[in-house]
Amino acid sequence: MYNIGIDVGGTSIKAGLVEDGIITVKASKDVDKSMGFYGVVRDIEYVVNEILREKGMTIEEVRTIGIGIPGVVNKDGHVSCVNLGLKNDPLEMKLKEIFSNVKIVVENDANVAAFAEYKYGSMRGYDVGVMITLGTGVGGGIIINGKPFSGAHGIGSELGHIILDSNYYDCNCGNNGCFETFCSATAIIKYAQKLIGEGKKSTILQFAQNNIENITAKMVFDAYKENDEVAISVVKRFKEYLIRGIVSIVHFIDPEIISIGGGVSNANEIILDGLEEELNKRVIYNGNGIAKIVIAHFKNDAGILGASAL
Amino acid sequence: MYNIGIDVGGTSIKAGLVEDGIITVKASKDVDKSMGFYGVVRDIEYVVNEILREKGMTIEEVRTIGIGIPGVVNKDGHVSCVNLGLKNDPLEMKLKEIFSNVKIVVENDANVAAFAEYKYGSMRGYDVGVMITLGTGVGGGIIINGKPFSGAHGIGSELGHIILDSNYYDCNCGNNGCFETFCSATAIIKYAQKLIGEGKKSTILQFAQNNIENITAKMVFDAYKENDEVAISVVKRFKEYLIRGIVSIVHFIDPEIISIGGGVSNANEIILDGLEEELNKRVIYNGNGIAKIVIAHFKNDAGILGASAL
Repeated sequence: MYNIGIDVGGTSIKAGLVEDGIITVKASKDVDKSMGFYGVVRDIEYVVNEILREKGMTIEEVRTIGIGIPGVVNKDGHVSCVNLGLKNDPLEMKLKEIFSNVKIVVENDANVAAFAEYKYGSMRGYDVGVMITLGTGVGGGIIINGKPFSGAHGIGSELGHIILDSNYYDCNCGNNGCFETFCSATAIIKYAQKLIGEGKKSTILQFAQNNIENITAKMVFDAYKENDEVAISVVKRFKEYLIRGIVSIVHFIDPEIISIGGGVSNANEIILDGLEEELNKRVIYNGNGIAKIVIAHFKNDAGILGASAL
Repeated sequence: MYNIGIDVGGTSIKAGLVEDGIITVKASKDVDKSMGFYGVVRDIEYVVNEILREKGMTIEEVRTIGIGIPGVVNKDGHVSCVNLGLKNDPLEMKLKEIFSNVKIVVENDANVAAFAEYKYGSMRGYDVGVMITLGTGVGGGIIINGKPFSGAHGIGSELGHIILDSNYYDCNCGNNGCFETFCSATAIIKYAQKLIGEGKKSTILQFAQNNIENITAKMVFDAYKENDEVAISVVKRFKEYLIRGIVSIVHFIDPEIISIGGGVSNANEIILDGLEEELNKRVIYNGNGIAKIVIAHFKNDAGILGASAL
């Protein structure tokens, strides 16, 4: 019996057949956002059939299809996702109709990534873990007693929207001061643009070919390595809020391990430098130890691997 | 068989025999802080023996002794508490030696209060619940799957020390911007003192007999009811941060219910007024419902009741 993992993204749906923690067959399809729920269901059906065809097997040989969704999943498998035009749609039920006798499990994608790190990656062996995904936004995944935890209404583990401070711009969610307005790639870029826009000279602007719209988080970290003053300010601010976010996470659920993933985590040396020492200073009681901080293991395959293991 | 609950506080140790959720026999003793671990153990032994004597029964008839401690409890029952001079002391083990054949369970006191609300009070029937205790500080208790949850090293559920904003004074814990520096009784008093100290006229000062050192949180809420401008500013700020704290809690673990207790919660009408509406506006996705907000049921007996049920 086989398990299939499906990673539903904003632009493509990727599926994989996972055997012993390794993706042996892959399939993917661009999503047609205009088709909404119907389109998502049809695309999932398509990638599953591609995998069956490629592997030369039938649906009867599949035990579980796990699906990660970039949105909110409630207890009975209804999903909502602004980017895909889904609003409380019965995804789990619909897929159960299509793939009868296969176990269907739907989860939020950040929780799926955390579960991949728990099953196969950086959080393996730790029963209480938190994953922070620093990308365009900040995502969060929580593992409690070896299972993804997303709360009573599917809106838990939205760590990007815990509030850390007042900020100079509002979050997309409508609040001010969300974690993701300080520590996402977007936040890093915005703050570099702000300092440069205020007239500060920086190597970052050269990297961006003199157009602040071209600035990326990578450019900021590259300039930081060259001791660029603007980059130092931006990275210092980013790290201060990353620490505050982690302090809040530790004082909230005190995990055994915190894994940092997402594109920004490519700057792993800069992120980890001094982080545990600083955390030790700020946590209210560290006599029994504090969460270990690590960089996530998986980049692109976490969605498929985690979903297949749900 | 009987269960005994013990509430170890900074000034006294209270114990109760609990039958069907009702305390039928009580005993208490002032603590002698100078005696440290030895004193705490001796005092616990004393109150347990008082209960046995009063009830006319033997220790063989006791199934469980549950103990709530105002500090950190690690996985193997070692406790640390600055106020009582405890530092990683083996409380559970020591009590097991004394009361052989009785099950001994030690927990953080805020988690014990949350457990009392879960077993007998405002959070009854809700398997994922958070209790926020607004007192001299801000405490937190988390129930997950019907059990108190305090994380991997006993420092979870310290909700008073999640960080919400920059504040004009530092927290006792050394950080800046902790929940308890905005929403504890102390925070309310400090901010009223600050505004009055800056020269603002207020009924609060009359209530305090013209001495700002006499100000209490109750005086602020009483003045608020009389439309006092300073009180309105203080309560507005308190409620703004209470909402931010609750938004962070919801985005973090999305409980079914949040119960607000502690002395400040006596101002229940002022606290609940408009709270759920505002929360609905600020939570990123409310399509599946949001945590219910209630006022805690128990005042003084939560420690004994919760501990007896551990």
